[in-house]
Amino acid sequence: MEKVRPGTPDSKALEGYIMSTLFYEPSTRTRLSFESAMSRLGGTVLSTESAGEYSSAAKGETLEDTVRTVEGYADCIVIRHFQEGAASRAAAVASVPILNAGDGPGQHPTQALLDLYTIQREIGRLDDIKVGCIGDLANGRTVRSLCMCLSMYKNVQFYFVAPDVVRMRDDIKEYLSARGVKWTEVKDLREVAADVDVLYQTRIQRERFTNMDEYAAARGKYIIDTDIMKALQKHAVVMHPLPRVDEITTDVDADPRAAYFRQARNGLFVRMALLKLCLADKAHLEL
Amino acid sequence: MEKVRPGTPDSKALEGYIMSTLFYEPSTRTRLSFESAMSRLGGTVLSTESAGEYSSAAKGETLEDTVRTVEGYADCIVIRHFQEGAASRAAAVASVPILNAGDGPGQHPTQALLDLYTIQREIGRLDDIKVGCIGDLANGRTVRSLCMCLSMYKNVQFYFVAPDVVRMRDDIKEYLSARGVKWTEVKDLREVAADVDVLYQTRIQRERFTNMDEYAAARGKYIIDTDIMKALQKHAVVMHPLPRVDEITTDVDADPRAAYFRQARNGLFVRMALLKLCLADKAHLEL
Amino acid sequence: MEKVRPGTPDSKALEGYIMSTLFYEPSTRTRLSFESAMSRLGGTVLSTESAGEYSSAAKGETLEDTVRTVEGYADCIVIRHFQEGAASRAAAVASVPILNAGDGPGQHPTQALLDLYTIQREIGRLDDIKVGCIGDLANGRTVRSLCMCLSMYKNVQFYFVAPDVVRMRDDIKEYLSARGVKWTEVKDLREVAADVDVLYQTRIQRERFTNMDEYAAARGKYIIDTDIMKALQKHAVVMHPLPRVDEITTDVDADPRAAYFRQARNGLFVRMALLKLCLADKAHLEL
Repeated sequence: MEKVRPGTPDSKALEGYIMSTLFYEPSTRTRLSFESAMSRLGGTVLSTESAGEYSSAAKGETLEDTVRTVEGYADCIVIRHFQEGAASRAAAVASVPILNAGDGPGQHPTQALLDLYTIQREIGRLDDIKVGCIGDLANGRTVRSLCMCLSMYKNVQFYFVAPDVVRMRDDIKEYLSARGVKWTEVKDLREVAADVDVLYQTRIQRERFTNMDEYAAARGKYIIDTDIMKALQKHAVVMHPLPRVDEITTDVDADPRAAYFRQARNGLFVRMALLKLCLADKAHLEL
Repeated sequence: MEKVRPGTPDSKALEGYIMSTLFYEPSTRTRLSFESAMSRLGGTVLSTESAGEYSSAAKGETLEDTVRTVEGYADCIVIRHFQEGAASRAAAVASVPILNAGDGPGQHPTQALLDLYTIQREIGRLDDIKVGCIGDLANGRTVRSLCMCLSMYKNVQFYFVAPDVVRMRDDIKEYLSARGVKWTEVKDLREVAADVDVLYQTRIQRERFTNMDEYAAARGKYIIDTDIMKALQKHAVVMHPLPRVDEITTDVDADPRAAYFRQARNGLFVRMALLKLCLADKAHLEL
Repeated sequence: MEKVRPGTPDSKALEGYIMSTLFYEPSTRTRLSFESAMSRLGGTVLSTESAGEYSSAAKGETLEDTVRTVEGYADCIVIRHFQEGAASRAAAVASVPILNAGDGPGQHPTQALLDLYTIQREIGRLDDIKVGCIGDLANGRTVRSLCMCLSMYKNVQFYFVAPDVVRMRDDIKEYLSARGVKWTEVKDLREVAADVDVLYQTRIQRERFTNMDEYAAARGKYIIDTDIMKALQKHAVVMHPLPRVDEITTDVDADPRAAYFRQARNGLFVRMALLKLCLADKAHLEL
């Protein structure tokens, strides 16, 4: 695996800066990649693994008050919250940059950026691509964001392959159509695999189902295995926001077109860039 | 907000030193401000967010043994514990400095120091001041400590404004009287607001009440709102140890006399000073 | 207590390196000593106090996938897991060094190393020693590992002193006998104390008992107190992997032959050495 030169400080661009993570719901992957990004740039981290449970929130403090307190101790705050709009509320009162690390059913913008960056890096372009979106398209926040982001590029085409109960919702379909982006719902995963540049698989989220029979049926329906990989073009890649359960079989991992662990690692680079932009370059971004 | 020069290491005074936090009960605010203080001085932090739950304490290890172990890994230990006297017990066996970050119903000395520092910085003096103490005066540890600390200064005068069920206790009243410090119990918050230099509001702590009707009555009785702010003198300030629930309305936040977020931030400076004293200057303090 | 020169960075040998802890079960002592070791060498730490509860593991991610993700953010991973073989499984897929910080009923190799290091440092040799193993010899992972490790040295002799229900198991006895190592089961702790170089006491683990009467009987049977210390030779030492409950009385702590807190501290040195070997020296170890 390509390293960020261990043993050589990558940069001291953020030396003397402090980033605080404020996670109201757990996300080891996102938290560790933000913390690693800050460390790789020479900055320091104040970590909160479970802000909701342990913080003053339990005593009735508002998110706004927590942010106005924590900004006294840190130069930027990375927030993960279970409520949509939480990061915006934080940004409205904060005098330091707020980075949204996921706000419940809302957005997860750094994930969307790392997905775009991965496609650019793996396929070489973001225009003129065909993307197959597989799995839980109704609830999968990342795949919904991906569709919206890619609609800004030229000649992007989507295939949606999902069990009936978790089909892509109308809002995204209308969003794409309004922008002239082509999309098709397809039943045959192998057919899609043979045609796309990117196969974006997602996890069927057990926590979304009340009927476990429906969950079991949905979960087993579209699996990427070595058979599907045979259909996939040589230059194409398989992506997945992770964590994976069994929607991609592990014998696919060794295939060079399995890009999902590289994709996870790209989260580090994207977050390094964002932190440097916000802190050292004082860029004003709104994501 | 005034920054501690982000991007410029404030000091490398504590480079090479390690501070361990050992928190047996949660306190995000206090923990983060201690950790930020250590980082701002170039030191390193070992963090324990929930020592009681996760450590050897669950297997029956005494606090003393935990401290004698952790002092092998760190140059000072910040302890938060639910038992009064815990920090003293730790200090009795430790060969490294122990900093008390709150020991249950006991003391919270760094909070008391930051309150004093805030008054000095906001009002310009600690002698010759009038302080209105509002809210839960029976259980509020910070307001009790504040009374004791300010009794060391000249010509300080207190007004106590509290719902009947949480009136200031006799021990503090006797402590003040014995030192010739004037205090009065007053029912009218507006009258007090018009006369004081500092209005120190505290949260009615729901967890102290068994009767929820009593809680509701106590909670709504003395609110600082824009109306009270009209009565407050121009040079006076509103303080609060935070977290706040609704005992100060949020429309007060924009008033320059609302000092509570500056007060929280002062915790950083006070803790930086203490860490430097204990570690670099080898001062022997007992708080 | 001997310090690792606080205020002077001990070394910048690992500057620019990131270590991630990945703890699926709590162990404050082990985690803090690894984190301190990394800090003392100038490296940075990404900390996970409760990976099982908070990470993607809860969503069904395998350990292998978690490791392949986290290795994108860190230069080495310290794993503590409740399943035997977890560290090996991690090492099989990882491209960065994996350090086993305990894998359930399996091994705890850094503890075994620090025990050996402590004997060497305290007694001056690892050959030609007599070791009394006391307490829960059936379940105590550390004492079992110690027997196996010391069997590689010359002329080591063991006494096993344990309540009947937690006697040393046959596997270790056979292991020792097969290597020509002498061992004896003894009932009288005082007799053993008078003859050994090392008295290695262990905690009777309440969590291993279903019958609480049996636990109470086992727990009180072999206590090291000042009386036993009178029998112990002048050059001999008492060790204990900690945490201790009451199997060594606290009045023994002041005796210079009470080596257990020094032993805990040696964990720092051993882990510093291991991290430097793995990262700066690129050594390939298998423990």
